[in-house]
Amino acid sequence: MRIGVDIGGMSVKIGLVERQGIVSREVIKTDSDGQTPYELIEKIADAVELLLHKNMLTAGACDGLGIACPGTVDAESGTVTYSNNIGWENVPILGLLQQRFNILMALANDADAAALGEVICGAAKGKNSAVLLTLGTGVGGGVILNKKIFSGFLRGGCELGHMVIERNGKECTCGRKGCLEMYASATALMNRARELTEKNPNTLLHKMTGGILSDIDGKIIFEAAKKGDALANEVVDRYLEDLSIGIANIINIFRPEIIILGGGVSAQKKYLTDQLQKRVDKMCFGGVHGEIPSIVTSVLGNDAGIIGAAYLAGM
Amino acid sequence: MRIGVDIGGMSVKIGLVERQGIVSREVIKTDSDGQTPYELIEKIADAVELLLHKNMLTAGACDGLGIACPGTVDAESGTVTYSNNIGWENVPILGLLQQRFNILMALANDADAAALGEVICGAAKGKNSAVLLTLGTGVGGGVILNKKIFSGFLRGGCELGHMVIERNGKECTCGRKGCLEMYASATALMNRARELTEKNPNTLLHKMTGGILSDIDGKIIFEAAKKGDALANEVVDRYLEDLSIGIANIINIFRPEIIILGGGVSAQKKYLTDQLQKRVDKMCFGGVHGEIPSIVTSVLGNDAGIIGAAYLAGM
Repeated sequence: MRIGVDIGGMSVKIGLVERQGIVSREVIKTDSDGQTPYELIEKIADAVELLLHKNMLTAGACDGLGIACPGTVDAESGTVTYSNNIGWENVPILGLLQQRFNILMALANDADAAALGEVICGAAKGKNSAVLLTLGTGVGGGVILNKKIFSGFLRGGCELGHMVIERNGKECTCGRKGCLEMYASATALMNRARELTEKNPNTLLHKMTGGILSDIDGKIIFEAAKKGDALANEVVDRYLEDLSIGIANIINIFRPEIIILGGGVSAQKKYLTDQLQKRVDKMCFGGVHGEIPSIVTSVLGNDAGIIGAAYLAGM
Repeated sequence: MRIGVDIGGMSVKIGLVERQGIVSREVIKTDSDGQTPYELIEKIADAVELLLHKNMLTAGACDGLGIACPGTVDAESGTVTYSNNIGWENVPILGLLQQRFNILMALANDADAAALGEVICGAAKGKNSAVLLTLGTGVGGGVILNKKIFSGFLRGGCELGHMVIERNGKECTCGRKGCLEMYASATALMNRARELTEKNPNTLLHKMTGGILSDIDGKIIFEAAKKGDALANEVVDRYLEDLSIGIANIINIFRPEIIILGGGVSAQKKYLTDQLQKRVDKMCFGGVHGEIPSIVTSVLGNDAGIIGAAYLAGM
């Protein structure tokens, strides 16, 4: 048995995990006015103890405890270097938890942990390699090579969303122009749809939202596209094209066994992956002489982080 | 002692290699009318025996024999799958050599072997990770992760030159548009200079070559730029910008400890790397919060492949 902890902006999810998935869980709220990181870590430790107690287990009987956390982490020292989501800076979480539990521990970024989770018992079960792209507010990602998280060799990590695909393109928050994130995130999809809907009031997308641009989200855009709306199809088409460029770049670089899509946009499942696969197949280096990985959507969803975290330690 | 063999379009270079480099060498010509791959492999085996004999060694006294070869190879089966340069298709080179030598053997692509060579005793000596970009006819590359060649998990490999950096850009030989290779190869540099020189006869670049466009090569372009020619500087500036985009993408993906430039353009050494470093420093994700690898030029040059090949087996 292993313990996985996934710290998010709203809640901390804790699970007892076996190879096939989560067998028991606890959830606590992340934010509470004026609470220090140290107070939250105490609460996490209490919740872990409660979960173990409920399952008649001791920490010593478990093979490891892992933490998944948004932002940048220093896995070696077990410190959350900087996390905007939860407002942490240089918090030595593993050192603090080690005062409570005598057990093998490890720490990783949450997207990295989610990618590992998908390899343990999700979309990439049994694979040696996988790349997870999360299509949400930004474009995040986790890379698994030889069943291990790959996060680069120097501080700064592996940031697939910050690969320029359009020289001199849209300004990115990272300071560059034309990063994949500016074209393939859910935010990019919505922004483009809102922009075009404002200029073209005579469309289904406009009708479906009563012209309230802020109501246009990914789901509505895909819905309108499926109903045949020309504008929505134009937006989706461009989105798929740009995302395909990013995925083909990733394949030409890592040639992983599988590409997994997560985040809000991945709710479109086969409607999304079928169209992407068709485009990407034509783009990969070597074409049919090479092997092209399948593009699939996440199987574990929000559980991926907990499961991946549980399998971080001692792997 | 180890044996390294680097097969090229013109010659096969063979070396006895130790940690500090090549201690003894042989060279044979690659092409000879009507010669089959099997005949060339026999000649390679003869040359290896001659080299061992000259150094009073037996194959059994060596720790390994490695082959570096252009094109795509299947390292597992020891077969050169396809090499345009030497006209080979499905040649089981290791199996054939094993009939002559009872020694640990391995096979790799030549750019991959060169990257490993630089890690053994060249520009990346002692590093765990490095990315070598060869700026020649195309943009090739070798990626070293944890002191080992990384070439992806499926057939098709790791092709850094075929990462799109300009959506809908110049048509690449691989079938996509806007690959790094179309902007950062020596060929791209020369093509751009020739194009602009034809349109602008009143420039130093035109004068230096007597208007013979085919005489414009990388060396002359950099020479004219250093002498202050506006056109040459425009060409070099654009080249550096595009190459920087590619390097920053690679850093954001692999965050290796060092970036090594090889191929014809790398003869510009610090003139090239100083300008690239300045640009790339501003582009990497996380800026000063991350660690930015140094950009250097190859130390071993043409010897890198032999040395890397020698260290392929049993590593």
